[in-house]
Amino acid sequence: MIICRTKEDLKRQMAAYRKVGASIGFVPTMGYLHEGHASLMRKSKEQNEITVLSIFVNPLQFGPNEDLDRYPKDEARDLALAESNGVDAVFLPSVAEMYPTKPLTSLMVAQITDRLCGASRPGHFDGVGLVVSKLFHLVAPDRAYFGMKDAQQVAVIQQMVSDLDMPVEIVPCPIVREPDGLALSSRNVYLSAEQRSQAVVLSQALKHASDWYQEPGMNAERLQAKVKLHISKASDAVIDYVELLHYPNLDALSQTKPLTDDSQPLLLALAVKFGATRLIDNCLLERTEVQDYVQNDDEIEAAPGHGYGSEPELCR
Amino acid sequence: MIICRTKEDLKRQMAAYRKVGASIGFVPTMGYLHEGHASLMRKSKEQNEITVLSIFVNPLQFGPNEDLDRYPKDEARDLALAESNGVDAVFLPSVAEMYPTKPLTSLMVAQITDRLCGASRPGHFDGVGLVVSKLFHLVAPDRAYFGMKDAQQVAVIQQMVSDLDMPVEIVPCPIVREPDGLALSSRNVYLSAEQRSQAVVLSQALKHASDWYQEPGMNAERLQAKVKLHISKASDAVIDYVELLHYPNLDALSQTKPLTDDSQPLLLALAVKFGATRLIDNCLLERTEVQDYVQNDDEIEAAPGHGYGSEPELCR
Repeated sequence: MIICRTKEDLKRQMAAYRKVGASIGFVPTMGYLHEGHASLMRKSKEQNEITVLSIFVNPLQFGPNEDLDRYPKDEARDLALAESNGVDAVFLPSVAEMYPTKPLTSLMVAQITDRLCGASRPGHFDGVGLVVSKLFHLVAPDRAYFGMKDAQQVAVIQQMVSDLDMPVEIVPCPIVREPDGLALSSRNVYLSAEQRSQAVVLSQALKHASDWYQEPGMNAERLQAKVKLHISKASDAVIDYVELLHYPNLDALSQTKPLTDDSQPLLLALAVKFGATRLIDNCLLERTEVQDYVQNDDEIEAAPGHGYGSEPELCR
Repeated sequence: MIICRTKEDLKRQMAAYRKVGASIGFVPTMGYLHEGHASLMRKSKEQNEITVLSIFVNPLQFGPNEDLDRYPKDEARDLALAESNGVDAVFLPSVAEMYPTKPLTSLMVAQITDRLCGASRPGHFDGVGLVVSKLFHLVAPDRAYFGMKDAQQVAVIQQMVSDLDMPVEIVPCPIVREPDGLALSSRNVYLSAEQRSQAVVLSQALKHASDWYQEPGMNAERLQAKVKLHISKASDAVIDYVELLHYPNLDALSQTKPLTDDSQPLLLALAVKFGATRLIDNCLLERTEVQDYVQNDDEIEAAPGHGYGSEPELCR
């Protein structure tokens, strides 16, 4: 496995890969790797001849009161995990290597960044956009792999790639969870034993939500309230947000109309603090249609905007 | 010469060039080509195996009251000029092709865009940054060629390329002028015969300025005033700005200190309206040192910050 600590080394290595026409998959990370990252590496290995991993804790995407200084690091363990997952090259730049001077260029994605973590962490996605853009230019991958745990990040990066005609395919990959459901995160190590045990309410709430979503007449307001109520059963949980939005544009939806009226994909996303540790999780809600009993268009039109409560065959 | 009107066509063509390992030079333009553009194409031909030209009048870099709707066009003449200069491929997208949806991503370069045309044309360089970034991603050139007539644009793009680690070398090329000195511009066709004849004051003023700059004790305030005075001899000229700044960072300099105290490269840039037509021009000011008489460091240190007025050997 090749380790590059400078842009020049990386560019030389990438030029060698491209010269032989190898397809390149790229997994950008902030290190302290876990099975979620490993699943991205394996997906990249499946789809590309070469897999490149980057490990860089990007100061620009941390706010002044966030956990930049204590973000966990373990380079030796990260490199072992990368090698055991078949990574071909790792880019491990210092902050000075990535930002030799203060960048004057900013890269911002409007609208999609107004909500969720964009609202809670001002400037966060500007920092993400800038560093991902730099890494894409340095690595020039055919495909780049991102975990859906950061669903908003995936949406922001897909918009940036599309708007800027970046020649890379973004491949979103499923959230990887602990056996009890907690989404894997480098930040989970911050949790005390008690917080760790309480944190299971997050994935539980999302799981319940996918059932509640199927209930006739359920609306966004009630669904969010039910999720918040479930999370609040954990005494240490302090909710930052619980929001149901359209995906991937993250537009708001009516809080009171039945969710059955909405045909766009929906993202239920949450951020919750346990002590100083802020965890995020989410799921995409999909309607489970019972094919045998589905109504035809005429019958639906006969009862516009109401009556779904008595038509359980539209829901599970 | 290959003509591509869609991104897909262009990408396919570029992939074919890259497959054979050809180096690619790129000349992005807004069309209505003149000898200034031709000089960029020839420079690209000199330095690369393949030269790609783009012609796209980018609506995002025009303000609401600017000349987008009347910007001159002559596709047949442009293609003939490109072909006669040995261009290999031309990218000629429609606005809908370049912007199928309203971009949510913005790309801004701070500081360098605060002055000159950035101040006179708010949002102009954001539009330039976005479209140049898109074109760079689509063409993926080794080198890109820009005329120094748009010196601020060159500085903005160089900063963007550096900040974002874009894998392209920016090659600034000298301003091409009419025999009487007027800088070539697609907008020159807007000028009436009378305005065209008056417009010679711009290049004259810059030429004088490079002499005035050598005068002992000359400072920014006086130099700018002298340039403005010369331009105001043309009765139709309405000055937008005349500014002396450091180049390429476009930082301000002391208005009153002798210019001899400043060791950084200086840009003298101007924008002047003749009727509805806004023309820009500029020159880099360089001190003409008389090598035989140049002082050594000790002598300079002996008279810090003053006394240069009596040392003509430092100037021409």
